[in-house]
Amino acid sequence: MEYRKIKDDQDNNGDSVAEDIENLRGKSLSVSNVAGSLGGSPVERSKWKRKSIVTLALTILTSSQAILIVWSKRAGKYEYSVTTANFMVESLKCALSLAALGRIWNNEGVTEDNRLSTTLDEVIVYPIPALLYLVKNLLQYYIFAYVDAPGYQILKNLNIISTGVLYRIILKKKLSEIQWAAFILLCAGCTTAQLNSNSDHVLQTPFQGWIMAIVMALLSGFAGVYTEAIIKKRPSRNINVQNFWLYVFGMAFNAVAILIQDFDAVMNKGFFHGYSFITVLMILNHALSGIAVSMVMKYADNIVKVYSTSVAMLLTAVVSLFLFGFHLSLAFFLGSIVVSVSVYLHSIGKLQR
Amino acid sequence: MEYRKIKDDQDNNGDSVAEDIENLRGKSLSVSNVAGSLGGSPVERSKWKRKSIVTLALTILTSSQAILIVWSKRAGKYEYSVTTANFMVESLKCALSLAALGRIWNNEGVTEDNRLSTTLDEVIVYPIPALLYLVKNLLQYYIFAYVDAPGYQILKNLNIISTGVLYRIILKKKLSEIQWAAFILLCAGCTTAQLNSNSDHVLQTPFQGWIMAIVMALLSGFAGVYTEAIIKKRPSRNINVQNFWLYVFGMAFNAVAILIQDFDAVMNKGFFHGYSFITVLMILNHALSGIAVSMVMKYADNIVKVYSTSVAMLLTAVVSLFLFGFHLSLAFFLGSIVVSVSVYLHSIGKLQR
Repeated sequence: MEYRKIKDDQDNNGDSVAEDIENLRGKSLSVSNVAGSLGGSPVERSKWKRKSIVTLALTILTSSQAILIVWSKRAGKYEYSVTTANFMVESLKCALSLAALGRIWNNEGVTEDNRLSTTLDEVIVYPIPALLYLVKNLLQYYIFAYVDAPGYQILKNLNIISTGVLYRIILKKKLSEIQWAAFILLCAGCTTAQLNSNSDHVLQTPFQGWIMAIVMALLSGFAGVYTEAIIKKRPSRNINVQNFWLYVFGMAFNAVAILIQDFDAVMNKGFFHGYSFITVLMILNHALSGIAVSMVMKYADNIVKVYSTSVAMLLTAVVSLFLFGFHLSLAFFLGSIVVSVSVYLHSIGKLQR
Repeated sequence: MEYRKIKDDQDNNGDSVAEDIENLRGKSLSVSNVAGSLGGSPVERSKWKRKSIVTLALTILTSSQAILIVWSKRAGKYEYSVTTANFMVESLKCALSLAALGRIWNNEGVTEDNRLSTTLDEVIVYPIPALLYLVKNLLQYYIFAYVDAPGYQILKNLNIISTGVLYRIILKKKLSEIQWAAFILLCAGCTTAQLNSNSDHVLQTPFQGWIMAIVMALLSGFAGVYTEAIIKKRPSRNINVQNFWLYVFGMAFNAVAILIQDFDAVMNKGFFHGYSFITVLMILNHALSGIAVSMVMKYADNIVKVYSTSVAMLLTAVVSLFLFGFHLSLAFFLGSIVVSVSVYLHSIGKLQR
């Protein structure tokens, strides 16, 4: 057992440590204390290290994702159909999960925790997040009747609040008062950083637009929190198996989306029409980001995910400044300060809990 | 003694309790704990009540001050000379302090603590704040060569940071980590609330402009913190005597300012040229605000003053919304959230110190 733990530290796949998590549950409370985890046992340090690595990976992948989107927009209008790209992302994630599983089976053999076959009881909840995301993506087409695209980017920050609230309600995990304050600041700071001279339009959003934005934020938050609940329900189950089942249903629902939205385009122009080198890079990036999100859900939580992607947004803007000569606004500067203080308060709040 | 305390509670002049403060110094540490002071002894409750009243008075007076300025601008350009108005403000404050002292002498007789006569040792530091403000006000004329008026309004938020830093260094009072975070948020939130489509110009402020803005913030912060140091140095001394000496030097330095800047205008058009009903109201308001600031310095501190005037700025904007049909921007909304969280964190941080 001890050998396996060290091995996992070395290859950083984080595959088989999962089964140790349940045994360590009693200890895991003290891991939430950063100081404790830094000075703690090798297992605690290993968990803290893994949590840091997946969080860092998510931050970097999310940053580069946004930069690729800017790059592809500069290169020209989207010529490919978004639904086929989403389908390719889900397929790639599925393939990568299977490849990782293959390697594990080779090294460790098939066990109860890493076998692909499943029970109805285990698998029945897996389609739910994919279904929620599908509904949310379909709603996205209708909200643009009420809000323009930059306004929608601003309203998307409601996701931060909805994730926090649903995390508290569904996973029944407590945030300290300071952490709640930090979460409100994260939302305000991210929104401030995105302000531009046209942002005030969003205040004129009609009532239906607000309702849709709130429903979409709740769907997105619920999908994230529910995914965490599914993944954490069986702590010893291999994350790659859990991912495989999540992504299989993602593929299925995206196939439905192709039929609904892009059937004609795919039939007339082909499945891969308009794909470019950047498109392929974006699909690769989205797939890796998606896997990083799952890892964060397994080894950290939705709160860490929200912080990670919010900080990534700021990193993106700073990198864009150098890559594309973007204009640094005072609003962005102030928003970044508020987000930084929020990250600091979140960690302080954890220690004082 | 007990009778006097109750009496002071009743007329809320807060005149003679001052001499009890020194006796209570040992206890005053526990007063900084809000919960303790709410449930504490009658004396502690009385101090907490007085602190709240002066803070509330300052907030309301500062709010109405800004509204009067907007009103007077709407009514037309400033036709009067600002230096004579400042002189009148200092004179009025002096007169009000003397009137309050007269009442106290009538009731209690002249004592060591409320006599007007002073020693060189006591009075020698009193000109310093007035001198600092004079230098700052003179600099104000030169900074506009580098920054426009709205840009200067934004740069003035540097006062918040300079006050916090100088408060720490000069008065050697500690703020908790959370309170520092709250103070940075207060500065960021106030600035965010003032953002408009032209605010980014301030980032193009030349180097000399930044230096002047920082020097002015330091002068203003130093004057505030030094005033607190002077007033708190002799806790038993009556605040009206302390105010009298502060304002006498204020009158003197403003007389110098009239000679430097508006001598010709005063000679040709008269001292009160261009005064209107609003001008008189503004002078009255500035005088009362000034006295409220002194009271906050005596019974609370510079940190409370900064929070009070910052919240007043937000109140002003909300009132202006109804009075003048001002446009509520998303930036103002976000800044107000950040300031509100900052106020909350400041009080939380106090409890956890």
